[in-house]
Amino acid sequence: MSDILPEFVEFAHLLADAAGDVIRPLFRTNVAVDVKPDESPVTIADRRAEQVMREMIMKRYPDHGIWGEEEGKYQADAKYCWVLDPVDGTKSFIAGMATFGTLISLVRLGIPVLGVIDQPIQKERWIGGAHLPSTLNANPVRVRSCPKLSLATLSTTSPHLFSAEDKVKFEHVQKKVRYTVYGYDCYAYAQLASGAIDAVIETDLKPHDFCALRPVIESAGGIITDWQGRPLTFVSDGRVVAAGDKKTHEEILITLS
Amino acid sequence: MSDILPEFVEFAHLLADAAGDVIRPLFRTNVAVDVKPDESPVTIADRRAEQVMREMIMKRYPDHGIWGEEEGKYQADAKYCWVLDPVDGTKSFIAGMATFGTLISLVRLGIPVLGVIDQPIQKERWIGGAHLPSTLNANPVRVRSCPKLSLATLSTTSPHLFSAEDKVKFEHVQKKVRYTVYGYDCYAYAQLASGAIDAVIETDLKPHDFCALRPVIESAGGIITDWQGRPLTFVSDGRVVAAGDKKTHEEILITLS
Repeated sequence: MSDILPEFVEFAHLLADAAGDVIRPLFRTNVAVDVKPDESPVTIADRRAEQVMREMIMKRYPDHGIWGEEEGKYQADAKYCWVLDPVDGTKSFIAGMATFGTLISLVRLGIPVLGVIDQPIQKERWIGGAHLPSTLNANPVRVRSCPKLSLATLSTTSPHLFSAEDKVKFEHVQKKVRYTVYGYDCYAYAQLASGAIDAVIETDLKPHDFCALRPVIESAGGIITDWQGRPLTFVSDGRVVAAGDKKTHEEILITLS
Repeated sequence: MSDILPEFVEFAHLLADAAGDVIRPLFRTNVAVDVKPDESPVTIADRRAEQVMREMIMKRYPDHGIWGEEEGKYQADAKYCWVLDPVDGTKSFIAGMATFGTLISLVRLGIPVLGVIDQPIQKERWIGGAHLPSTLNANPVRVRSCPKLSLATLSTTSPHLFSAEDKVKFEHVQKKVRYTVYGYDCYAYAQLASGAIDAVIETDLKPHDFCALRPVIESAGGIITDWQGRPLTFVSDGRVVAAGDKKTHEEILITLS
C-alpha cells in the first residue's frame, strides 16, 4: 500500500491543526448543546471544526470524497475519502474533560489507510498509516504485550452503549480482565497504541468513529476488528474489539462468541 | 472558620508541588502494578508521593496528624490532620489517562477545611477552603446552575462501584439525567466545581477520597453530602452525592431514597 503520499500525511496534520484552532477556544466555555435526532449531543465546536476541514479538503482535493459525522457524505464513493469526526466524545468535551479527540482518516477504496487521533487541549497527536509507523507528537509508539486476558486493562466508554445481549457478552470478558476503566472514547484507543491499555471493546461505532483508529493501532503493532475478527471497513456493524496483543484479541473473540 | 491560616494554604501548595514532582516522571512509563489486600492497584508513584508528603508534614508540623491512603494513620486524632491520596484514580494513572489527581486535605477537628485537587500532568490545581474561594490555577471557579435533574450531566467513576441495591437506586437517577459520563475519579468533582458537570454520585469512598473534595466544592458554591444529605466527615459511610445546584442535589436525594 504505497498510496499514502507524503502530501496526504502533511495535509492530515493541517486538517488537525485547523480543527484544534476551532475547538480550543470553545473548550470549557459552556457552549450551547443541541440534541441530534439520535439523541446524541452536538455543539458549535463539532459543527465549525467539521466545516473548516470540509472546506480545506474541497479546495485542495476537489475529486476526493468526504464523510463527516455532522454534515454527512459528499461524493463518498470516490477513490479517496476523508472520514471526519470533529469531536469524538462530545459528552466529555461538554463535561470539560480533555479526553475527547478529533478523528481524521483517509480511506482508499473503502480501506482506512491513514489515521489521526488528535487531542487539541493536551496537544497530543497520534498518527499512523500504511508504511507510516504510528507516532505520538512525532515519537514512535508501540502496543505492549499482554499474554493473558487476566492481566489486561480493558476500556469501554460507557456500559450503556451495549444492547442487552451484547452487554452479557461484554461482561463475560469484563469478569476475566484485571482492570476495567470507563470513559475516554477515542482516547482509549490512542492509549492502546501507546502501550498503556491492553484492550477496548465497544459497539455502535460509526465509520467516523473507527476509521481513524485502525491505521493508528495497526501501525503501532496492534489489532482492531469487529466482534467476528473481520477488518473494519465502511460496512462493519459497529462492534469493535481492539487489542495490543494478538493473544488478548483472540481470547476476547472466543469469550464474546 | 478563621482557622485556615495562609501558611497552611501555602504549605498545601508545597505538598502538591512535591507530589507532582514525584508522579510526573513516572507517568506512562509502564511502572509495576502491585495489588493491595482490597484488590485495588498501587504503584511506586502512589507510595513515593505519599512518603514525600508525610515527611514534609512531620518536619513542618510535628503535632499535626496524617491519614494517607497508602501508609494509614499517624496521630490522626490531632486537632489538625492532613488527609492524603497521592494518586486518586490509580487505574487511570496506569492506563495513561491524565485524569487522576493528588488529593490533599487539611481536616480540623474532624471537618475538612482546606482541599486541593491537583492534576500534575495537565498542571491543573483546584484549591478551596473556609474563607478561601475555590480557584483553578489561581482563577476563581464557580459551579453552574441546573434547575432540573433532567438537564444535568451526571458523572460516576464506574458502574462496578455500586452494590446491587445501590446500583438500582443510582439507575433511578441515571435514567432522569440528560447525560452520564463515566471515569474520571476526583477529576469529575473538580469539573463540577468549575461548572462543567452538574452532579457526581458514588459509593465506597474513603476519607482520603472525599475530604479534599468538600472544601473545593463548597467554596465554589456547590454541595456535597452523603446519600442522606449529611455533611461528609471522617465517619461518613462513603456514599457521596455532589451537585453544583442545590435543586439538583435535592432531586437526587429524593430519587435515591
